[in-house]
Amino acid sequence: MARIAIDMDNVMADLTRQMIDLYEQKHGVRVAYESLNGHPDGGGFPIEGETHQFIHQPGFFRNLPVMEDSQEVIRALMEQHEVFIVSAATEFPLSLKEKIDWLAEHFPFISWKNIVLCGSKTIIEADYMIDDHDKNLRYFKGEPILFSAPHNINLTDYKRVNNWKEVAAYFQLTPAIAG
Amino acid sequence: MARIAIDMDNVMADLTRQMIDLYEQKHGVRVAYESLNGHPDGGGFPIEGETHQFIHQPGFFRNLPVMEDSQEVIRALMEQHEVFIVSAATEFPLSLKEKIDWLAEHFPFISWKNIVLCGSKTIIEADYMIDDHDKNLRYFKGEPILFSAPHNINLTDYKRVNNWKEVAAYFQLTPAIAG
Repeated sequence: MARIAIDMDNVMADLTRQMIDLYEQKHGVRVAYESLNGHPDGGGFPIEGETHQFIHQPGFFRNLPVMEDSQEVIRALMEQHEVFIVSAATEFPLSLKEKIDWLAEHFPFISWKNIVLCGSKTIIEADYMIDDHDKNLRYFKGEPILFSAPHNINLTDYKRVNNWKEVAAYFQLTPAIAG
Repeated sequence: MARIAIDMDNVMADLTRQMIDLYEQKHGVRVAYESLNGHPDGGGFPIEGETHQFIHQPGFFRNLPVMEDSQEVIRALMEQHEVFIVSAATEFPLSLKEKIDWLAEHFPFISWKNIVLCGSKTIIEADYMIDDHDKNLRYFKGEPILFSAPHNINLTDYKRVNNWKEVAAYFQLTPAIAG
């Protein structure tokens, strides 16, 4: 049994899609997901800095779409491993309760005991960390796993997974889930 | 430089005093601090279970008194060490923002990057952990330091500190702070 630390934003929760949706609602322009590739997190939209506003809106984190297959795969991972949700959240105090409520709705099988809301992740000890940010994986002493997001698409330093089916395959979960 | 994980409740924030104050406000009886010795956390009051209600009241964590000398000693510790605040909080979603706001008011020199709100602390990696709970220190791989609280007064398994002056002395801070 290994301990697996799993990030929320852009890993369990589709932050990028939420930004594209909100941008379209506000400006009437649907930005293509792929056009964000290679830009910094939240960047690549016609009006730069706009997505930064979204993050501070009440409800932003509460209403994020669930990443495809994440529920099934995390539930399966928990049968064999110790899973912790580790989310950088203390920078945005409003997000804290929203994240807990979001997890309670979409991942009710995860205990409050296994949720960590933090700033720097250097203090986290686990065997694996699934995260979309270089800064979180960089100092991790276990096995880092980079979850693809537009901002990290050119990063080559880590084992990369593109979706939750690939996470299932990596951890050799049953073929039904690994797809 | 060492990494020191510091608990909030009953270490930085005087939870016990807050309970005694609230109990007195509600029932007109001032319970002596020492009479709580040896009882489980929150226990020992004439009406058992009453303090459990307090914890769920909005504002409970926001208005906790600051533990004596904690501000000066933590500030001094930060000059020589890497300090993380590690608080079990995800069980009480309302407490999350209250704890961040409390820290911002009383410990404005602590960055959001160094705050961890979690459930189980088994995932925390540090050199020292200052905590009042056996359950948090029990599986810690670094050096555990038990901060005295009524509920742990009979515990003999750890290095014990009774107040922040003793923390300062333990970490050999300047005599002016160690007192």
